[in-house]
Amino acid sequence: MISKNMADRLVSGSLIRKMFEEGNRLKSLYGEDSVFDFSIGNPDLEPPEEVSRALCSLALSPTPGMHGYMSNSGYLSTRTAVADSLSTPGIIVPPEAICMTVGAAGAMNAVLKSVLDPGDEVILLSPFFMEYTNYIENHCGIPVIVPTEPDTFLPDFQGISAAIGPKTKAIVINSPNNPSGVLYSEETLRKLNDLILSVDHLIHVISDEPYRELVYDGKHAPRTMDWIRNLIICYSWSKSLSLPGERIGYAAVNPNHEDFDLLSRAIVLSNRILGSVNAPAMFQKVVEFAIHAKSDISRYETRRNQLYEIVKQAGFSVNRPDGAFYLFVRSPEDDMAFCRKCAEYRLLVVPGSAFRCPGYFRLAFCVSEKTIFQSEKAFREVGKYYGLCTESSDEIITKSSPD
Amino acid sequence: MISKNMADRLVSGSLIRKMFEEGNRLKSLYGEDSVFDFSIGNPDLEPPEEVSRALCSLALSPTPGMHGYMSNSGYLSTRTAVADSLSTPGIIVPPEAICMTVGAAGAMNAVLKSVLDPGDEVILLSPFFMEYTNYIENHCGIPVIVPTEPDTFLPDFQGISAAIGPKTKAIVINSPNNPSGVLYSEETLRKLNDLILSVDHLIHVISDEPYRELVYDGKHAPRTMDWIRNLIICYSWSKSLSLPGERIGYAAVNPNHEDFDLLSRAIVLSNRILGSVNAPAMFQKVVEFAIHAKSDISRYETRRNQLYEIVKQAGFSVNRPDGAFYLFVRSPEDDMAFCRKCAEYRLLVVPGSAFRCPGYFRLAFCVSEKTIFQSEKAFREVGKYYGLCTESSDEIITKSSPD
Repeated sequence: MISKNMADRLVSGSLIRKMFEEGNRLKSLYGEDSVFDFSIGNPDLEPPEEVSRALCSLALSPTPGMHGYMSNSGYLSTRTAVADSLSTPGIIVPPEAICMTVGAAGAMNAVLKSVLDPGDEVILLSPFFMEYTNYIENHCGIPVIVPTEPDTFLPDFQGISAAIGPKTKAIVINSPNNPSGVLYSEETLRKLNDLILSVDHLIHVISDEPYRELVYDGKHAPRTMDWIRNLIICYSWSKSLSLPGERIGYAAVNPNHEDFDLLSRAIVLSNRILGSVNAPAMFQKVVEFAIHAKSDISRYETRRNQLYEIVKQAGFSVNRPDGAFYLFVRSPEDDMAFCRKCAEYRLLVVPGSAFRCPGYFRLAFCVSEKTIFQSEKAFREVGKYYGLCTESSDEIITKSSPD
Repeated sequence: MISKNMADRLVSGSLIRKMFEEGNRLKSLYGEDSVFDFSIGNPDLEPPEEVSRALCSLALSPTPGMHGYMSNSGYLSTRTAVADSLSTPGIIVPPEAICMTVGAAGAMNAVLKSVLDPGDEVILLSPFFMEYTNYIENHCGIPVIVPTEPDTFLPDFQGISAAIGPKTKAIVINSPNNPSGVLYSEETLRKLNDLILSVDHLIHVISDEPYRELVYDGKHAPRTMDWIRNLIICYSWSKSLSLPGERIGYAAVNPNHEDFDLLSRAIVLSNRILGSVNAPAMFQKVVEFAIHAKSDISRYETRRNQLYEIVKQAGFSVNRPDGAFYLFVRSPEDDMAFCRKCAEYRLLVVPGSAFRCPGYFRLAFCVSEKTIFQSEKAFREVGKYYGLCTESSDEIITKSSPD
């Protein structure tokens, strides 16, 4: 007597969840250190010092009402700090543009509830974070999946154009991307904006940006608000400040959005009635204090370089990601079968099918350098099994063409 | 280009929200101290000492990963503490029964998403917390409103029986009740269980229990799990530990529930995909530490006694509530008009219509004793205006029959 929809979901389960359970089984069998778990995007860096300082200060000097209700959109001081951090000389973001939420997932649900009527369509660019379809279906929307360009994983503008119809209400972008690690350039954002504005009705661009600060090689993610008019940013400090368990993020509407006033109010209302009510009070104050704090991104860059080399040396075909903390690697056979094979070598990886992109697998490199270092042999053995590299550990010959 | 549903809601707005805005206008006009705001259920007591101790301990002695992801259902240690607190010799609650959520509102949304197919009906007993209809409609359910018995606000079992049909999937109860303050007895719970079990299909009893500990005169709320088999408790520490802004609560399925296994798993999945993902990490640890802590309920009891006397003395007809922190008072005229009239006397109160019970108004007594004391004159003046009491402030004669 649970709902039919949920009953179906419980039966099908989540691919990542299955990997997680298989991982636990292997870990209990062989010990934590003998299993190389690249399946989960849980940041392994601790939050920067500003977070601890803010927490200590709030805990040691409590103020009356600090755990009480505030406006459903969040504290004005927090929203102002966020708005200022998003403002540029060209675009002044007012605090009314910001709704504090329980992470980016809370923001996306509030945004989708605000814009979707039953049967409305939302374009997703595969590969994409698997929860997007759930979020859309929560609000009776229909996901329309458009594959990205082969190999580059950049938007296929012709494909998007062909997928747009009268029911298209929104498109979701996510750069740096989970799982591909691809970073969209200013030119890509400009083209997308042009395409969206050429349509005869309003289409919202929902930009899921939890990885915005996780960009390597001295590059930076372009500010989406500078390039896309009908933009709604969904942000979370989960990755940038390593706070995923605390559920703190925001939705931000571009002040130039054609429907700014109604939309920003609808998001606050949705945030309330979906049950979040408001973002957690204390962590609103923490992120306000730590608004300019940064995790040590170089640690992730080191891990990326390390794992990228290992995977390439084992003979796999993979792009070097510009951002996020994932490698998205060509699978030498059916990706589901490949992941099962990897588990035999105690390597836990997620099949591309989980991201609606079969033929690939994802590695999360937000794990310790020690784990990455120790996984080398396992990757080489898998590579050898598939004939991607030769036996000798000193003289690796790659058979596929990397990059 | 927001959704039609949200556009309608934005136009109609919330009655409490309107009172809130009117209150702000009056406060900026006359000063904070000259406006008597009884409109919002925001606990005015600070959290008990155990909460501050837990926060200090967590902030000063951080452990690796304490802000990271955990199981979507919450920390096992927290769920075990909650499960133990709900267990009795007769009913052993396992941690699998518990899903930690972003408050009771998060719990109700996760539960409703888990059980509702489109068009399924959920019975609400008016008066009820106005967000229930939103929560049900979020998941394409249909609220079916059954008025409680006149004056006592206890369930009308004949009315409930008549409202049950093949589409009935759940009934929501809330004791102690917002807004009526009524506490359901063991006998009432037993009767409800009998009625529900006599139906030829499974009906879930969703018990919203944020006020469970707020019971006065030495009484206690009966444990719902002891009396109702197909029960799901939605709980929050918002009121009991004065933490509404932190969004921490849980859903608990009676281990004897006919569909325990599937239902408890579905709630965890719903919690994840609705965007909460998990309850805030640090406050899970706080409530685990403070699981046996209590706010000083006697402070609320004092306020209740104080406001009850004032309202009665001003000539209004009102029951003395057993629990929660609201008085639900008979309105001497149309409740909307009455609330507007009250605002002229700088009294902010909420019309019963907001709780689908016209003809009454609600006073939240979780405000300072000073505010209650100073409001006496205003209540008397309103009473006088409606001819409920005489002019003399020394010799009040009540014209309506209280209690």
